[in-house]
Amino acid sequence: MTRTLSPGALMAAETAEQPAVWRRQLAEAGPGGASGLAEAAELVRRRAPRFVLLVARGTSDHAALYAKYLVEITLGLPVGLVSPSTYTAYGRRPDLRDVLMVAVSQSGGSPDLLRTLEVAKAGGALTVSVTNNAASALATTADAHVDVLAGPERAVAATKSYTAQLLALNLLFGGAGADALPDLGDAILARDAELAALAVRYRFAERMITTGRGYSYPTAREAALKLMETAYVSAQAFSGADLLHGPLALVEPRVPVLAVTSAGAGGQAFAPVLDALAERRADVVTVGSAARDVVLPETAEPLAPLLEILPFQLLARHVAVDRGGDPDAPRGLRKVTETL
Amino acid sequence: MTRTLSPGALMAAETAEQPAVWRRQLAEAGPGGASGLAEAAELVRRRAPRFVLLVARGTSDHAALYAKYLVEITLGLPVGLVSPSTYTAYGRRPDLRDVLMVAVSQSGGSPDLLRTLEVAKAGGALTVSVTNNAASALATTADAHVDVLAGPERAVAATKSYTAQLLALNLLFGGAGADALPDLGDAILARDAELAALAVRYRFAERMITTGRGYSYPTAREAALKLMETAYVSAQAFSGADLLHGPLALVEPRVPVLAVTSAGAGGQAFAPVLDALAERRADVVTVGSAARDVVLPETAEPLAPLLEILPFQLLARHVAVDRGGDPDAPRGLRKVTETL
Repeated sequence: MTRTLSPGALMAAETAEQPAVWRRQLAEAGPGGASGLAEAAELVRRRAPRFVLLVARGTSDHAALYAKYLVEITLGLPVGLVSPSTYTAYGRRPDLRDVLMVAVSQSGGSPDLLRTLEVAKAGGALTVSVTNNAASALATTADAHVDVLAGPERAVAATKSYTAQLLALNLLFGGAGADALPDLGDAILARDAELAALAVRYRFAERMITTGRGYSYPTAREAALKLMETAYVSAQAFSGADLLHGPLALVEPRVPVLAVTSAGAGGQAFAPVLDALAERRADVVTVGSAARDVVLPETAEPLAPLLEILPFQLLARHVAVDRGGDPDAPRGLRKVTETL
Repeated sequence: MTRTLSPGALMAAETAEQPAVWRRQLAEAGPGGASGLAEAAELVRRRAPRFVLLVARGTSDHAALYAKYLVEITLGLPVGLVSPSTYTAYGRRPDLRDVLMVAVSQSGGSPDLLRTLEVAKAGGALTVSVTNNAASALATTADAHVDVLAGPERAVAATKSYTAQLLALNLLFGGAGADALPDLGDAILARDAELAALAVRYRFAERMITTGRGYSYPTAREAALKLMETAYVSAQAFSGADLLHGPLALVEPRVPVLAVTSAGAGGQAFAPVLDALAERRADVVTVGSAARDVVLPETAEPLAPLLEILPFQLLARHVAVDRGGDPDAPRGLRKVTETL
């Protein structure tokens, strides 16, 4: 009774679900809501951490990077991304009083993240996990758990769990103004034909560079990962400033660049990067609310990453399918990767 | 009276100088020494910071990443890499009491790092700069300065300033046992012909993957940057664990992988990554004290990165020159990149 799905059908369906997931999250964000968000946020406020550590792997690591900008910029707290190997391979027992550790994971089952969270707890940290599985080890071990309520995600390439993590982290750290997002998301996802047409441009591209600055940098990273894991494009992501420090030498007219640029301080600071790319006659396509090519609606800057990634999810799927691949079954990958 | 140098001559000369630089640094590390190391380390000990932030760009960012592992593992303190844009583009004024901020820069002149350091100081942080120019703005603005004593670096691709930064950071955070390093470095650099032979393998490679875990991950990152900025290879670096979360799909027999693996906990934790690469019939060449191919002498694990990068500096130069490039004048790059 196995039904054969067309290549990328799972990824397409889960990509399309995102605005509905966000509506569910917003509806369940208040006290007593199914996400546990209000309770986790209240616990964080009460404990008033002075330092924040984030830990994650893969796509969730890009959500953690987003949270890093959020905490630095909106809370003004020092923040770090933990290398799990420090706590696992090297067995370090750090002093983490006054520290909030947030673990982000779709499955909630990664052994290295669990071990890191346990070590952090033993070291005096307040621990919060953000997962898509309330019954997972990470969910039950943390002092508080936020359920991103994305529903089962079956495609290997994470889509809805990623933007659900972004929204959960935004709400956890006091974000507001997300009510308009689901409708904006639906409008972008309706532009599938536009991204299918853009995919033609990259039909034979072996390499690609993605770039963005500030809040748009996590988008550039996640876009590169989608292109790598579904279409096997050798996509490299650079923050706009880092691109100018060395990797710019790679840029030439036959290496396509996808630049994420949205309205706000990060987008403004990105202008010199676009100038440098133009000087090298790079093939640049821009995506975002400050873009010329794939133009997205404008939002508050911290919410832009939720919308920015949608065209890349569509694009990656089209490039993968056009090349004869199946983004639902990328070679060599499983849905849950266990690293120790 | 301009003398024309052969391509890569500057980079070759500065690569060869590294052991001499390390000897100078070790000789000047004590109280009253020219590096200022003892005084900076004493100030850090006295102020006993509870959190550490690191800020850097380009090659120096890989030295900062090395310091992140060092602080997490040897000091057991929470640590973060700062996104300078938070303090520049977004104009955030964070609360940084009990925080040590270390800025790492070859030139000491980058405006965004200077601004970040100033904001950190105003926010209550203890600030230390690690540069190759005692007269630079970063050197004079920080509460303490460590001079890496590498001497003028003229090649665009940083070599000696990078390992000098690693050694300075190692000594700053209480490292020991480095006395044997310069002789070991000389022995590795004498193996130039071995790396010239290996470069033949990559003569026509457009892409490459570098990987390592723990202390060897910064080496993988810096190796990729050298290959990008001198030989224009599209080299991507992944931590061993991250490679298994998605990018593994990229790996196939025609994409060369350079794996950094040294004796110790990080190298041991790397074994499953090598297994996964073998399963995909990847073309893997290993470099390090636990390697099968470019075998390096064993040291204490935190010192291994100083030696691990040397073969990659030689390799990148050979690949670049073999392809008709000049690693001393890579297209589109200047020695000092100013980002705001």
